[in-house]
Amino acid sequence: MKVLIVYAHPEPRSFNSAMKELAISLLKGQGHEVKISDLYEMNFKASLGRNDFLGLTNSDHVNYVTELKSAYEKQKFTDDIGKEQEKLLWADFIILQYPLWWFSVPAILKGWFDRVLATGFAWDFGRMYDTGLLAGKKAMLSVTTGGLQAIYAPDTPHGWDINQVLYPVNHGVLYFCGIQPTPPFVAYAVFQVGDEVRKQYLQEYKQRLLTLDTATPISYNRLSDCDENFKLKSVK
Amino acid sequence: MKVLIVYAHPEPRSFNSAMKELAISLLKGQGHEVKISDLYEMNFKASLGRNDFLGLTNSDHVNYVTELKSAYEKQKFTDDIGKEQEKLLWADFIILQYPLWWFSVPAILKGWFDRVLATGFAWDFGRMYDTGLLAGKKAMLSVTTGGLQAIYAPDTPHGWDINQVLYPVNHGVLYFCGIQPTPPFVAYAVFQVGDEVRKQYLQEYKQRLLTLDTATPISYNRLSDCDENFKLKSVK
Repeated sequence: MKVLIVYAHPEPRSFNSAMKELAISLLKGQGHEVKISDLYEMNFKASLGRNDFLGLTNSDHVNYVTELKSAYEKQKFTDDIGKEQEKLLWADFIILQYPLWWFSVPAILKGWFDRVLATGFAWDFGRMYDTGLLAGKKAMLSVTTGGLQAIYAPDTPHGWDINQVLYPVNHGVLYFCGIQPTPPFVAYAVFQVGDEVRKQYLQEYKQRLLTLDTATPISYNRLSDCDENFKLKSVK
Repeated sequence: MKVLIVYAHPEPRSFNSAMKELAISLLKGQGHEVKISDLYEMNFKASLGRNDFLGLTNSDHVNYVTELKSAYEKQKFTDDIGKEQEKLLWADFIILQYPLWWFSVPAILKGWFDRVLATGFAWDFGRMYDTGLLAGKKAMLSVTTGGLQAIYAPDTPHGWDINQVLYPVNHGVLYFCGIQPTPPFVAYAVFQVGDEVRKQYLQEYKQRLLTLDTATPISYNRLSDCDENFKLKSVK
């Protein structure tokens, strides 16, 4: 497979970095092709704005949904966006490697979603979810947390289990574009657990990586099962 | 009241801008004090990293949770972070004004969460939710969407209603720090609805703003109702 790892941690000695390095060496060893987007090393611009476009269709009143679509069609993006879109088109499988910050992705990765996943490139009106423009690709979230596994549960103050916490990215970003997420790999409480457990996490991650190409995607509802009002004929 | 509006849209002619301007003039007219953090105008740095700190406690292996806490205690943040923290301490009520991008906040606002809401300033170990360090303050999300109201529902491919979509910010960011969110104001499908409906939205927003100081916060579970394992004695 062709695997793109989008990596969003500022520290080369972080556990996220160790997970990224393990994935690169293991996947290459298995004969997969691997590309990396190391967002911090690239100093990736996070904030979508006018200066992402080489020309605007309506500079008096910028609508980003339509500008993003027009920029993709006319290839009027800045280079950094174009290069990420090329990598995405190349990839069969995308790994997002990041620490859970505020129950979400680091801002630099959110900016990658905001800027790279343009209308007309990753999705379009009527082309979402199973009909998204990046359909056919698979993905996996590889995430570290500060908190212990037990606290991601309905009977704790967090209130949500880890699948609910990751749903906005798995479903609302990846699957929205047609990319099918496979089950996430989560290394919990990486500050607290000590070296032995961290080594165990890497062993478990290795096993997960070895079966990446046969992992079954998470099952979600399909846009193609909706009526004309975007209502599902039956809900999973 | 002292009201801080954190505003995250790049365009001065956006509907978000109109909502922000309405809030400023209306709240000032009511005798409230108002401060603004216009993140795009400030060119607010989104990505948390080493250069946010004037000195590190351990530059060999940076742990951001502990560096953020140490930086707050020793006042070793860059000025932009310190100024935002001062505004937050000053405020009784915080309005977050933003467009829903990828079911979440724009990256520039995520960066404001990542960088400003430091350990030791906004929360700490054992000081979360009702015991968070910013307890006593209230807030409101004021959000625009691209999609129509009807599609934020369990029987659509989105799968989540708007309260679930906003939960990671309302509960996982604001309430995590002790800030009590009041019900959000959502202007749906602002591209599509036409001028009449947009005017109606501003009228409705005006009514909401007039009763800001008496709005009842959303009811959430309390850390102080947990046992020593972070488990709630009873779940709402």
